Amino acid sequence: MKNGIGFAGVGDAIDDFMLIKEATKGVASNGKPFLTLILRDATGEIEAKLWDAKKEDEALFVPEQIVKISGEVNQFRGRSQLKIMAVRPAQPTDDVYISDFVEKAPVEKSVLADKLTEAIFEMKNPALQRMVRAFIKKYQEDLLTYPAATKNHHEYVSGLAHHIVSMLAIAKELHILYPELNKDLLYSGIILHDLGKLKELSGVVTTTYTTEGKLLGHIPMMVEEIGLMAKELQIEGEEVVILQHLVLSHHGKAEWGSPKPPMVREAEILHLIDLMDAKMNMLNRALDKVKPGEFTERMFAMDNRAFYKPLFEEN
Amino acid sequence: MKNGIGFAGVGDAIDDFMLIKEATKGVASNGKPFLTLILRDATGEIEAKLWDAKKEDEALFVPEQIVKISGEVNQFRGRSQLKIMAVRPAQPTDDVYISDFVEKAPVEKSVLADKLTEAIFEMKNPALQRMVRAFIKKYQEDLLTYPAATKNHHEYVSGLAHHIVSMLAIAKELHILYPELNKDLLYSGIILHDLGKLKELSGVVTTTYTTEGKLLGHIPMMVEEIGLMAKELQIEGEEVVILQHLVLSHHGKAEWGSPKPPMVREAEILHLIDLMDAKMNMLNRALDKVKPGEFTERMFAMDNRAFYKPLFEEN
Amino acid sequence: MKNGIGFAGVGDAIDDFMLIKEATKGVASNGKPFLTLILRDATGEIEAKLWDAKKEDEALFVPEQIVKISGEVNQFRGRSQLKIMAVRPAQPTDDVYISDFVEKAPVEKSVLADKLTEAIFEMKNPALQRMVRAFIKKYQEDLLTYPAATKNHHEYVSGLAHHIVSMLAIAKELHILYPELNKDLLYSGIILHDLGKLKELSGVVTTTYTTEGKLLGHIPMMVEEIGLMAKELQIEGEEVVILQHLVLSHHGKAEWGSPKPPMVREAEILHLIDLMDAKMNMLNRALDKVKPGEFTERMFAMDNRAFYKPLFEEN
Amino acid sequence: MKNGIGFAGVGDAIDDFMLIKEATKGVASNGKPFLTLILRDATGEIEAKLWDAKKEDEALFVPEQIVKISGEVNQFRGRSQLKIMAVRPAQPTDDVYISDFVEKAPVEKSVLADKLTEAIFEMKNPALQRMVRAFIKKYQEDLLTYPAATKNHHEYVSGLAHHIVSMLAIAKELHILYPELNKDLLYSGIILHDLGKLKELSGVVTTTYTTEGKLLGHIPMMVEEIGLMAKELQIEGEEVVILQHLVLSHHGKAEWGSPKPPMVREAEILHLIDLMDAKMNMLNRALDKVKPGEFTERMFAMDNRAFYKPLFEEN
Amino acid sequence: MKNGIGFAGVGDAIDDFMLIKEATKGVASNGKPFLTLILRDATGEIEAKLWDAKKEDEALFVPEQIVKISGEVNQFRGRSQLKIMAVRPAQPTDDVYISDFVEKAPVEKSVLADKLTEAIFEMKNPALQRMVRAFIKKYQEDLLTYPAATKNHHEYVSGLAHHIVSMLAIAKELHILYPELNKDLLYSGIILHDLGKLKELSGVVTTTYTTEGKLLGHIPMMVEEIGLMAKELQIEGEEVVILQHLVLSHHGKAEWGSPKPPMVREAEILHLIDLMDAKMNMLNRALDKVKPGEFTERMFAMDNRAFYKPLFEEN
Amino acid sequence: MKNGIGFAGVGDAIDDFMLIKEATKGVASNGKPFLTLILRDATGEIEAKLWDAKKEDEALFVPEQIVKISGEVNQFRGRSQLKIMAVRPAQPTDDVYISDFVEKAPVEKSVLADKLTEAIFEMKNPALQRMVRAFIKKYQEDLLTYPAATKNHHEYVSGLAHHIVSMLAIAKELHILYPELNKDLLYSGIILHDLGKLKELSGVVTTTYTTEGKLLGHIPMMVEEIGLMAKELQIEGEEVVILQHLVLSHHGKAEWGSPKPPMVREAEILHLIDLMDAKMNMLNRALDKVKPGEFTERMFAMDNRAFYKPLFEEN
Repeated sequence: MKNGIGFAGVGDAIDDFMLIKEATKGVASNGKPFLTLILRDATGEIEAKLWDAKKEDEALFVPEQIVKISGEVNQFRGRSQLKIMAVRPAQPTDDVYISDFVEKAPVEKSVLADKLTEAIFEMKNPALQRMVRAFIKKYQEDLLTYPAATKNHHEYVSGLAHHIVSMLAIAKELHILYPELNKDLLYSGIILHDLGKLKELSGVVTTTYTTEGKLLGHIPMMVEEIGLMAKELQIEGEEVVILQHLVLSHHGKAEWGSPKPPMVREAEILHLIDLMDAKMNMLNRALDKVKPGEFTERMFAMDNRAFYKPLFEEN
Repeated sequence: MKNGIGFAGVGDAIDDFMLIKEATKGVASNGKPFLTLILRDATGEIEAKLWDAKKEDEALFVPEQIVKISGEVNQFRGRSQLKIMAVRPAQPTDDVYISDFVEKAPVEKSVLADKLTEAIFEMKNPALQRMVRAFIKKYQEDLLTYPAATKNHHEYVSGLAHHIVSMLAIAKELHILYPELNKDLLYSGIILHDLGKLKELSGVVTTTYTTEGKLLGHIPMMVEEIGLMAKELQIEGEEVVILQHLVLSHHGKAEWGSPKPPMVREAEILHLIDLMDAKMNMLNRALDKVKPGEFTERMFAMDNRAFYKPLFEEN
Repeated sequence: MKNGIGFAGVGDAIDDFMLIKEATKGVASNGKPFLTLILRDATGEIEAKLWDAKKEDEALFVPEQIVKISGEVNQFRGRSQLKIMAVRPAQPTDDVYISDFVEKAPVEKSVLADKLTEAIFEMKNPALQRMVRAFIKKYQEDLLTYPAATKNHHEYVSGLAHHIVSMLAIAKELHILYPELNKDLLYSGIILHDLGKLKELSGVVTTTYTTEGKLLGHIPMMVEEIGLMAKELQIEGEEVVILQHLVLSHHGKAEWGSPKPPMVREAEILHLIDLMDAKMNMLNRALDKVKPGEFTERMFAMDNRAFYKPLFEEN
Repeated sequence: MKNGIGFAGVGDAIDDFMLIKEATKGVASNGKPFLTLILRDATGEIEAKLWDAKKEDEALFVPEQIVKISGEVNQFRGRSQLKIMAVRPAQPTDDVYISDFVEKAPVEKSVLADKLTEAIFEMKNPALQRMVRAFIKKYQEDLLTYPAATKNHHEYVSGLAHHIVSMLAIAKELHILYPELNKDLLYSGIILHDLGKLKELSGVVTTTYTTEGKLLGHIPMMVEEIGLMAKELQIEGEEVVILQHLVLSHHGKAEWGSPKPPMVREAEILHLIDLMDAKMNMLNRALDKVKPGEFTERMFAMDNRAFYKPLFEEN
Repeated sequence: MKNGIGFAGVGDAIDDFMLIKEATKGVASNGKPFLTLILRDATGEIEAKLWDAKKEDEALFVPEQIVKISGEVNQFRGRSQLKIMAVRPAQPTDDVYISDFVEKAPVEKSVLADKLTEAIFEMKNPALQRMVRAFIKKYQEDLLTYPAATKNHHEYVSGLAHHIVSMLAIAKELHILYPELNKDLLYSGIILHDLGKLKELSGVVTTTYTTEGKLLGHIPMMVEEIGLMAKELQIEGEEVVILQHLVLSHHGKAEWGSPKPPMVREAEILHLIDLMDAKMNMLNRALDKVKPGEFTERMFAMDNRAFYKPLFEEN
Repeated sequence: MKNGIGFAGVGDAIDDFMLIKEATKGVASNGKPFLTLILRDATGEIEAKLWDAKKEDEALFVPEQIVKISGEVNQFRGRSQLKIMAVRPAQPTDDVYISDFVEKAPVEKSVLADKLTEAIFEMKNPALQRMVRAFIKKYQEDLLTYPAATKNHHEYVSGLAHHIVSMLAIAKELHILYPELNKDLLYSGIILHDLGKLKELSGVVTTTYTTEGKLLGHIPMMVEEIGLMAKELQIEGEEVVILQHLVLSHHGKAEWGSPKPPMVREAEILHLIDLMDAKMNMLNRALDKVKPGEFTERMFAMDNRAFYKPLFEEN
C-alpha cells in the first residue's frame, strides 16, 4: 500500500508534515473551545480535532499553514479522524512548501502543454484553429495549473489540462474508428469546453466559486467568451455558433446545466468523452485505495454507488 | 360574438378575404391531388382542403397569398375545417394587404414605444440605464414589431413589446407595494429578458426558429449580447453580471432552460411577473372565445388544462 | 445593523431577556445531564446549551418561560449557538411579557382589520360578499392574530391577516391592469384561501399542527367549511362551487396539495399572487440580514437556494 | 367464444340491434357528408361510418337511438370498425330497450343491496354505523345503479355497488387474517369512499362529468358531505374526522388526487383493497377476450401494459 | 404495556440481559475512547455509550456477546439512548442464549412448515408442484429460519416463511372471491418469489448482504435458479417461463428492481399480496408501540409516513 | 446522393424491385377495399397504398413477396408515400432474392467472425476465455446474422456482430489509454452483453419479440444462460458472478432495465461503450441522409432530438 494520508487506515500512526486546508472554531460539551482542522497532503485529506485550543492556537493554526503533526487514525461516525498527539507549525528550516501538499496531475505540465500543441497542429480548419490558438495563448498559465473542479474528478493541480489531454487521446482514436467525426471540431470543443472554469473557480489551491461563477456558471460564461473572441479575431462563418453549441450542450441535458442538448454529432460525442474520462478518473483513484474483494466508499458523483474490486484483480 | 374566423362556429357560412399561411400538397384516396391550406385573418386560423387541385392551383395558392374565399365551417376529427365553396386570389383592386390578416397587439406601436421611453426615464442607475437605452436603440424597429413567441402567448405583431410593457406596469405597482425591490434592476431585466428572441426568431410573419436560435436559444444569446454591449459601452461594475443573471435565470429552472435559477431578489420577481403576464394573455384570449358555463379547449402551455368561465360572468 | 438575536453575529455579547421556546434534556459525554434551550426574541431564535443542569433547572427552564440571559454567540457545526454565562428566570418586577418576545406583523392589527373591511366594501356580488362577511365575523379574533404558517413565510403574530392584506393589494392593481379579472371572486378567494389554517394550526404562540390538521389539511377543511356556511346562509348559485374551487386549487398542483389544478382564471391568479407574496416575505426578511456582496443562508422553502445581495444595493 | 360486439373479430358478419352512443358529422374527401357512429351492445362498442349521410339520416341516427344494423367487422388503423351494409332505426314492434344495450354488473341489484345491508349489520361502532346507514338511505337508488367510473373499471350499470360489495368481501377475509384491523372503520370507509361519484358523474347511461365534478372532484365533495351529515346527525367524536381521512386519502398519493396520504392503518388497507378490486375487474374482463397464448390490448389504466394469458390456462 | 426494550420509554430503568449487535470505538471530546453499543433483546434495540472504555472493554464487549446491563433510558437527539450504570458479560451460569435475544416470527417453525406442505397438497399442476416441492426440499432448513429482509418488514427469525405463509392465506381467499385466478400459479409464485434471499442475505443473525447479493440481487438470482432447477428436473412447458416472470416482476416496476412489470394476471396479484402483507406487518408492529391518540415514528419504508392510532381504538 | 428508397425525395420517380414488409387491408371512404403496403429495399422503407384492391391482389401482395413497382414519391401528412403507377409480383426470371432487399452490416460476416476470434486470442484469463469461446461456439450461426435490435441501432443483418466488433475496437484503445481496465473482463462483457437477444428476438428478417423475450427480456435470460454454461463447463470463481453482473447492469439504470447499476469498473465502461457505439451508428446513418445546413428527422432513440449537419461539412 502506498504512503500518505489518502492511504492510511484506522489504527495507523502518523508523524508527518501536513497542510491546513480549513480551520473552524467550536465549543466542546465541557464548554472549552476547540479547533476542527482539515489537513491534507498530496494524497488526500483527513479531519482532526485540536481540543482545548487556546487563543494562540487559533492564530497559529490557520488555512494554508503547514504543520508537523503526530497522531493516530481513528474512526468517528464511520469516517476517519486523526487523533492529535502533538502538533506545531512548520519552520523555515523544515524545508517544506505548500506545493508539496497539494495533489497534482500524474503528468508533467510541460508534457500537457506539448500534447495541446500537437493537437492544434493536427487541425486544418483555419477558423477553429485560430480560435483555439487564441484561447490557449490568452489563458496559457491558468490553463496549465487550474483543477477541473473543486471536487469529484480532476480536482488537483493541472487537473483541467490533464482532463483535456486525456479527452483528446480518446477523440483521436474514436476519429479513426468513426471517420465521419469532424476531428477539428471535436478537438476544439474538447479544448474549450471547460475553459469557463478559469473564471468560475477562484484559483488553484483551496478553490471555491467566484460570485460571477455562482450567478452565471462556466457554460454561459464560455459561450460569451467565444462570441467576444470571434469578434476580436473577426472570425465569421458557422464555426463560431457550432463551437458555442458544443460548449453550451456539453453537460448533455437541461437538468445538468445545458440549456440545449447536443444537436450536432460532435457535440454528442464530446459529452460522452467528457463523461468517460471523468468517470475513469474517479473510478481509478477510488479503486486504487481498496483491496481485491472490497467495495470503495459510496461515491456521490457516481450516483452514490460503491464499486467492487473483483478478487481476480492483482490489485 | 365577435367577427372573424377565430370566433366562427360549426355551421357558420364564411365569405371573406383570408391569408394563406401554409399550403401542402397531398394525394386523396381517389388518387387525385389536393391542397391543404392553413388560412388566417386577424382573429385566428382554420384548415381547408382544396380538392382536385390542378397544377395552376398549386402555383396560385401559396403562402402569403391573400384569397377571397366562401364556404362553410365543418368539423373534422374534433377540429374545425373550412369546406371551400369558391376561392380566388385577391386582386390589386380588392384593396387588401397582408398586414390586415395578421393578429396585432391591442395597443398601438407608438404607445408601446412611449411606455418604454417612460420607463427608461424613471431609471436612475446610470450603468443600467445606459445599457437598456443602447439596446433599445440597436433594436428599435424589430423590438416594436416582433412577436414574443411563435405560439402560446403574445404570438402576434408587436407581441414582444406588448409583453414588456405589461410587465413593466406590474413591476411599477409591485415596487410600490414592496419598496425593497430595486426598480431600476427590475425594469432593465424586464426590458432585456426576451430580446434574444430577435435573433432566435426569423421575423414577424410566419415566424420560425433560426438555426442559431435552435442551437443556442435566446437566453445564452442575450447573455452574450449583454457582455458585448457592456464592453462596447465600457460599462463596468456588478450591474453587468447581475443583469446577465436576470436574463439567464428568467425561466426559473434548469429544466425550463435557465442553467442557473434566480438567485437575486429581482430575478425571482422577474420570473414571476413573466409567468403572470404570459398566463393572463393566454387565459384572456381563450376565455374570450367561450360563453359562461363553458370550458375552453385544453391549452398545451397551461399544462393542458381547460378553463371554465363561471355562469355569473357577464361574458 | 439592527438589534435582537436575529441580527447577532458570531462573537457578539448578549445580555437580555429572551423567551424559552423549547427545552430538551440530554446527557453529555461526561455523563452529566444538560438542557438544550431554543430561545427567542421578536427578531429571531438561537440554540443554547445549559451544561450540568440540575433537577431544579429542569423545572425552572421550561417552554414559555422568560429568562434573563447573558452570554456570547459562538458557532457550532456551521450554526450560531449561544454560550451561556448566566441565566435566571424573569421576575414580575422585570416587567416583561410573552408578547414582547414573539415576532409580529409589521402592520398593526387595527390597520389589517380596516383593510379587510375596505376590501369587502368594494365587492358587489351579494353571494360572495355575504359569504366572506360571515367568515370574517365567525373568525374575527383568530383571523387577526394567527400566523400564516409554522415556518417559512408570515410565521408571526397576525401573519395570516398580513398575508391576506398584501395579496389584496396586489389583486387590486392587477384588476386595473387586467380588467377581465373578476375582482369580487379574486378578493373572496384571497380572503378565504388559508382560513382553514385556523383549524389546522394549534394557536398563535409555539404553533403546531392539530390532529385534524395532520389528517385532513387546511384545504379540504376549508372547502367543507364553505359548504356548511353556504347551507347556513342559504346561498345558492355557482358562486359557492367556484369559491370552493379557488380554495381547493390554490396550491396549484396535486403534488403540492391541490387535488384539482386551477381551472378558473381567478384561481390561477390567486395561486400566483399567493406565491408572489410568500416569496417576497421570505426574500425580504432573509436579505435584510446580509450585507451587499453576501449570500443569504440556503432557504429550504425557496428550493434550497441562497440569494445574493448585489454590491450596488445600499443595504 | 361468447356473443356480442365485444367478442367479434375482423371478418365477422354482424346482424343485430345496437345502441348509438355517439354520432358525429364529418365531410369525406369526396366532399360528401358522413356520420361516425359509436355503437354498443351489452358486451362492448365499435365505430362505424355511415357514408353519404342525408339530412334525414342525421335526424334519425342520434345518441340513445337503437338501430338494427348489418355489416362486417373490418380493421382501420389497427382498430376494429364496422362496415355498414344496412341500418334502420328500431321500431316499437322490435321489442328492444336501452337497458338491453348497456353493460351491467354480473350480480343482481337486489343481491348487492342485501350484501350492503349484511355488512352494516356486522358493524358495532354506533357513530360509524349511523353515518353509513344515513348515506345508504340518502342515495339508495343511485348507489345501486351508478357505474364506478366512466371507463377503465366497473364502468357499467351498478358498477359502483358491485365494486363496494367485492371490496367488502376482501375486507371481511383480511380482518380474519389480520385481527388488528378495525372492521367497522374499514367497512365504513369502503362503503363511503366513492360515493362522491354520485355527484361527480352525470348519470347511469352515457355518463360524463358534471361541472362540479370537474372543478372539485369526488374526493373533496365526499369529505364535505360527511361533514354535513355528521352535523345533521349530531355525531361527534373522532370517528367523523377519521372517516373523512379514509375518503380523502384513498387514492394513496397527492399525485393521484389524495392531498393527504393514508395515515391510519385502515386507510392504507382501504387504498390497497380498492386497487386490488379495480385491477382484478380490468384484468378479468380483458383476459376474457383473448385466447391462451395471446396478449390483451394495451390497457391504459394498467400503465399501458398488455397482459398475457398462459398456454396452460384452459381459457 | 409489554416488557422489553422495544416498549421502554424515556425515564424507564433497565436491568436485564441483552445481546450486543454492534460495537464501534470512538474518541470523546475529552480525548478518551468510548464504545458505542447497539444492544437488543427479542422486542427491539437501543443504542448505548460505554464511556472511558479500556482496552479490556474493547475485547469484552463485541458483537454476539450477551451482557447483563443496568441503566436508564434517556433521549439523545430525538432518539432513545440507554445510559449505562453497570455492565458485565454474561456467564455460563446465567443460563442465557443468543436465541433468547433475537426476534422471532409469532408462529412456530413447525406450524409454518405444515402450512407450506398444505399449500403444496392443494396444487394440481404437476410442473408447478414438482418445481415448488424441489425448492422446498433443497432449502428446507434455511427457508424456515431466514428473515425476509435485513430491516423494515419480517426482519426476524423465520420471517421469510412467516411472510410466505401469510401471503398464501390471502391468496387462498382471493382465489375464492376471484375464481379466474390460477391458484397453482399464484401459490408457486408466492412460495418462490423471495427464495433468492437465501443467497442474497448472509444468514439468520446480524444479517448482511453477500457480495453476490449486492452485485446481482435476489430477483435475477432466483430466475436463474428456476432455470437450473427446471433443467435438472427436465420440466418443460410454459410453466417455467411464467414462473420466472412472476419472480422477475414481483417488485412491480423497473425502478423498484423488476426489469419487466407484471404481465400475467397472477404476477400482478402476487405483487399486490406481497405489498399488502409487508405493509400489515410493518403497521401492526409500529402501532403496537403507541397509545390511542398518538402517531408512530416516521416509517422509512412507508414513504416516511407517521401513522395515527385513533382514540376509539381500545389499544 | 445515393440510390435506393432511403435516399429518394418527394417528386422522385421509382421503377424498381422492392420487398413487401407488411400488407394491411383497409376500406376507403368510397367503400372500396385497399391495401397499405410497407415496401423496402436495402436502404430503407416507404408506405404505399394499392387502391381498389381485388381479392386476387390480397393473395398476391403479401409480406416477404418481392414486387416490381413503378410510381412517384409523394408526401402525405408530412411523411413520404409512394404513389403506385404499376405493380406486379417478381418472377423467377427476374433473378431477385429476399437477401437483396434487407439492410446488411457494412462489414462482411467473415471479417466480423475473424475479429471476434482475434479478440478471444488476446484474452488470458482462462475462465473468461473458456466461457466466451463456449458461447461463440453455441451460437455461431445466429450470432453472425442476427440484428442487434428491431429498430433504432444496428437493426440490420449481422447488426449484433457488427455492434460487438465496433465495441471491441473502442475497448482495445481505451485499455491502452487506461491500463487499469481489465481487458479480458471488458472483452467478455462486450461479447456476451447482448447475446440474450438471440432468444429475445424472433429471427433475422421481419424481426419481432418472442413471448419469452417479452416476459423476461434479454438481460435476465442471458444472466441465466451464463449460470447454466458455467455449471456445464464446471467453471468456478468470481469470474462467473462478475460476468453476470456486467450483463445485468449494462443498461446502466433500473429504469432502463438493469436491476443493478454498474458496480465494477469494467461494467461502467461497458455501459458507456455500448451507448457510444449505438449513438454513433444512429447518428451516422441519419446524418448520411441530409445535406449540410439541414437537420435530420427527430430521432426517438436520441431523446427525440433532430441533429444538424454544419455547413462546413463536405457532406
